[in-house]
Formats: sequence, structure tokens, C-alpha cells
Amino acid sequence: MKAVNVKQPGGAEQLQVKEFSKPLPKQGEILIKVNAAAVNRTDIVNREGKSGYNTNPILGIEVAGEVVDVASDVNIEKGTRVMGLVNGGAYAEYAVMPADRAMIIPDNLSFEEAAAIPEVFLTAYQTLFWLGGLTDEDTVLIHAGGSGVGTAAIQLAKQLTKAKIITTAGSAEKLDYCRSLGADVCINYKEESFPEEVLKATNDQGADLILDFIGASYWEKNLQSICTDGRWILIGVLGGTEVEKVNLMQLMLKRVQLKGTLLTPRSDEYKQQLTQDFSEHVLPLIQENKIKPIIDKIFKLEDVQEAHKHMEENKNIGKIILRIDEEG
Amino acid sequence: MKAVNVKQPGGAEQLQVKEFSKPLPKQGEILIKVNAAAVNRTDIVNREGKSGYNTNPILGIEVAGEVVDVASDVNIEKGTRVMGLVNGGAYAEYAVMPADRAMIIPDNLSFEEAAAIPEVFLTAYQTLFWLGGLTDEDTVLIHAGGSGVGTAAIQLAKQLTKAKIITTAGSAEKLDYCRSLGADVCINYKEESFPEEVLKATNDQGADLILDFIGASYWEKNLQSICTDGRWILIGVLGGTEVEKVNLMQLMLKRVQLKGTLLTPRSDEYKQQLTQDFSEHVLPLIQENKIKPIIDKIFKLEDVQEAHKHMEENKNIGKIILRIDEEG
Repeated sequence: MKAVNVKQPGGAEQLQVKEFSKPLPKQGEILIKVNAAAVNRTDIVNREGKSGYNTNPILGIEVAGEVVDVASDVNIEKGTRVMGLVNGGAYAEYAVMPADRAMIIPDNLSFEEAAAIPEVFLTAYQTLFWLGGLTDEDTVLIHAGGSGVGTAAIQLAKQLTKAKIITTAGSAEKLDYCRSLGADVCINYKEESFPEEVLKATNDQGADLILDFIGASYWEKNLQSICTDGRWILIGVLGGTEVEKVNLMQLMLKRVQLKGTLLTPRSDEYKQQLTQDFSEHVLPLIQENKIKPIIDKIFKLEDVQEAHKHMEENKNIGKIILRIDEEG
Repeated sequence: MKAVNVKQPGGAEQLQVKEFSKPLPKQGEILIKVNAAAVNRTDIVNREGKSGYNTNPILGIEVAGEVVDVASDVNIEKGTRVMGLVNGGAYAEYAVMPADRAMIIPDNLSFEEAAAIPEVFLTAYQTLFWLGGLTDEDTVLIHAGGSGVGTAAIQLAKQLTKAKIITTAGSAEKLDYCRSLGADVCINYKEESFPEEVLKATNDQGADLILDFIGASYWEKNLQSICTDGRWILIGVLGGTEVEKVNLMQLMLKRVQLKGTLLTPRSDEYKQQLTQDFSEHVLPLIQENKIKPIIDKIFKLEDVQEAHKHMEENKNIGKIILRIDEEG
């Protein structure tokens, strides 16, 4: 089968489509004929050889496709349309996945739309609810509102709670889109001071919960934007990993709760439980079109270098999808 | 009445005993004839003018004494022996306190022993249980094991859970004492690498919970000592407030939960609830002599400068008490 790996750790030019042998489903697993995969920041970190937790030579962590084979202990019918997180190996014609975290694709979604769901929606769900404990009374600040996780988080917060949603993004187009998804306060971080705007929108109290995909470059500003006893979930480092001079007294005086998290390196058991909770509470809303996957652009697998470059340019609103066409 | 205030923000030499007017109990308050108060780090920070949350000109945040007057809406008998947190004003002959957070002093304790309870035991209780969620299966790393909060935390962890207790201190004498209170692993941070010893004691997993009174100087070492998904409660900055470089990716990879906290600036309501929970679960153990206040040294109120200097020399094991003798 064809699949994408990395020649040498480095830029998008290191990605290549190569012939691999088809994986075999081990106990508890299913084999999926992949129709679509999606590009994630974690794929770029892996491409650069910087993650330290990737063991699969084939890139990619989420797929949508059809079940074509199952292990003897698995009770899923061949032909079932499924989506979900894989432990690497998504940018390929075939991939294996633990059966207990395969989600059945709602009928109203194409494979490309389904591939836009797992990673960003599970991450946003985990961050908002499992780690962030978002409630109706909260104000949540969602950075990178136009990103895959951002667009997912805005929709989830809107549909599952009455929380006030503040988001930041770098263009009017992205902010308009965020507003259409349910964001209440939309801040252009290139033109406005987001801490000032957050304080304005919260009676000078600050946000109860921050979803931080930015990291170092926003450290001080997030500290200004968070309320006393606020929760701050660190889930990405688009703005760098290293903060110079962190004042611990500020963390103590504001009694900040800072939680670092990543989804990809977590255990199979955790991913299964998260998937199950998400399926129960969110898939029905997707079926009713109240929550929708947001696709920015679809690339062919062969154009994977272009797809990575597109993400690195930060211009996307929503997900970048790889379509895997059958050979021949 | 005589009481202690600060001439100008600065060192211990700025402390003076002066004549103040006796405070009056407002609604919901009691007036206490103070027999003993205790010295806390927060008093030193206030003396230096650095806390930003102190409004009472008289220093001190905890007292033990006798109720001599009550507001009309309070139902506590005069003559009752009580201890608890005050909103400043403890280093004095008389102090007022919200009645709903006065704890009745167990019969087996002197006033000096009682004054050694509120701040450090409530802080340790809050940190271990309300914020740290300590369970029987956890390993907890308690820094500054010989300090007031350290000796309280070791006893509370030992008596209320089956958790494994690791502590650090800077002398063999302090470590022996920690062991006698229930610490399982005692590390001399001046002679050993505490992250190495913590990893050794936890099968290379790291501690589930860290009580950090040290801050900046231990930042990297705490990060090495904590387990994946570990909880890290930042409650003091004896080792400085400013961390030169914080690597956020490390916080994400280890999925650290970092919570900053302080007790003194919290609301009256919070202190009342904490006191109530503590009274229910811990006072009976104090009555049975299973948990005991640890007194390092008792000073007369007039020797308050010496008392502060003694704390700043870091040689104490347990609490430093001020005894307030009647005038004349």
C-alpha cells in the first residue's frame, strides 16, 4: 500500500509517498481502508523529529474509512464506516485501530468531513470538560479561534453550555467565522490588546478558563486575562515553548490552576474512555447538524507536502484533509 | 492595649510594640483576649511591605485566647477558649475574629500549643486534600519538612491516608524529627539530589503530589521529581519567585497540574468552610494526641524582633510562638 513517511527529520520537503506493507489487525483491532486522514500540528512536530513519542514510521493520527478486516475477538461488521484516533499510520491506504475507540460515522457526513472530527473535537472536548470543567456560569477564552481545535472548541462550548465565549484570531475573516460558530466576543490579536478586551468583557474579573494553544508568547497576557482561581489549560505551543522569567508569586496570588496536556501520547484506555464520553454527548449533535466539522481544504495524499506547508502558513480556518484515492 | 506594628517596611528591626485602641467586635465577630499568637512567613512578607493584601496595621494572622466579648448576633459564651485565623491583628492583647471560624481549643492543649495550629494545619490540610486530592495510593513529596507547614503536612498525610510520604530538609536533626512524625523517605537536600532519591523511592515514576513551599530554586528539580499527570501545589517561595526559563513542552509532556495558592488573602467564607472541614476531620485526632502542634520556641511579645529573626534563620523545627503577657 502507499503511505507517507519522513525521509529525514526536517521540513515538508522531507515527506514522501512510499510503498509499505499493509498492517494486520492484532487482538482487539480493526483494519480500515482509509478514505481520508487529516493533518495535525503533532504531525509536523513528528515530521521534525521533535515529539519523542512517535514510534510508527507512517505519519498521521486520525482516519475515516471503511472496516475491511477485524481481529477474531472484535465484533464490528466489515463495511462499517468508522472514524477515530490511530497510534500513527493514518497517512496511508490502510490503518489499524483499537476497535473500542472506533466511532461510527454519522450518515450525514462524508469521509472527508468525518476525518475532520476525531483529533480536534476530542482534544477540545477533553480540554473544555475533562480538564477545564467548563460550566454555564464561566467565561472561556479560546485562543486560535480559527484553528481546527479552536473551531471545534467554540462549537462545543456553545452547544453544550451557556458559557460566555471569547476568542482570539489574526484576521477579520477568521473572527467572522468564529462569530458564526457561536463566539460572543471576538478579538483580533493583531489590532487589539486581548487582555484589555477580556477584562472589558468580564467586568475586570478575567476569564474563568483559558484554552491555550499558544504558550510562551502569550504567557504574560494570559496571566493578565485569567481571573482569580481561574483554570488555564496548556495544550499547544504555537507561540514557542520557552518562557523567560516566570513570576511564581503571580501564580500564587491569582491562585491559577495550570494544566499541561497532550492527547496523542496518552494511553489507549484514556483515548477509549474519552471517545466513548464524546460519542455519547456530541455525536448526536453532529447528526443533527448542530455541530459540524470545519474543513479548510482537501489535498490528495500525493500532495502531502503542500498540505503541511498550508498548515504552517497559518491561513487555514478549520481542518486540512488528505484524501486517499485508490491506486490504479 | 499593646500590639505590634511596622515602623517602615523593612527588616525585623522595624517591628515595634505600641499602644493601640482595643478593637470592637462587629456583626458576626468575637473579641478575643489573646494569650498567644504565632509567627508566619506571611508576616515577614507583610513586614517587608511586599504582600499587597494586608490592610490591618497590626501584624499577625492567628491567635489563641479567651472570648471576652461577642457581637449581639453571636452565640458563643464568654470565657470560651478559642483559636483560629484573624484578618491581621494577631500580635496584640486583643483581636477580633469572625465567630464562624473560631475553633474551640481541645482541653489537652495550652494556649501556646493552640496558637501553633491554625495557619500551618489549615494550610497543609487545604494543600494536601482540597487542592492536592491526596489518596492512599499516592506518593507525596513534602518540601521543607521541618517547617511549620511541613511538620503539619507530614502528620496529616500520615494520620489521614496511607500515602507514601517523602520529605526534604537541610539537617539530620530535622530529618530525624520528620521521620518521628511519619515521613517514610527523608532526604537531606544539602547532601543528596532529591529528584534522584524521589525517583528511586517511586520506581522511577516520580511523586504524584508535590507540596512546594520553595518555588524558583526547585523548579527544575520538582519537574524531574513529579510523575506523569502529577499534581504540584505551589504554596510558598522560600527559594525565590522568579524562574529564569520555563519549558512549557515539559509541562505538557508530563501533563503537570500546577496550582498556585495562598491562604491569607482568601475570603472569609472560604476560611470558614476550610476551618469547619478541618475541625470535623482533624480536631478529634488532636484531642487523641495522634496529631500534635509542633513548637520550636516561645518568645514574649516584646521580643518580636528576635522571633522574626529566628524564623529568617531557618533553624526552627515547627512553630515560633509569641506569648502575650498581661500588662502591669
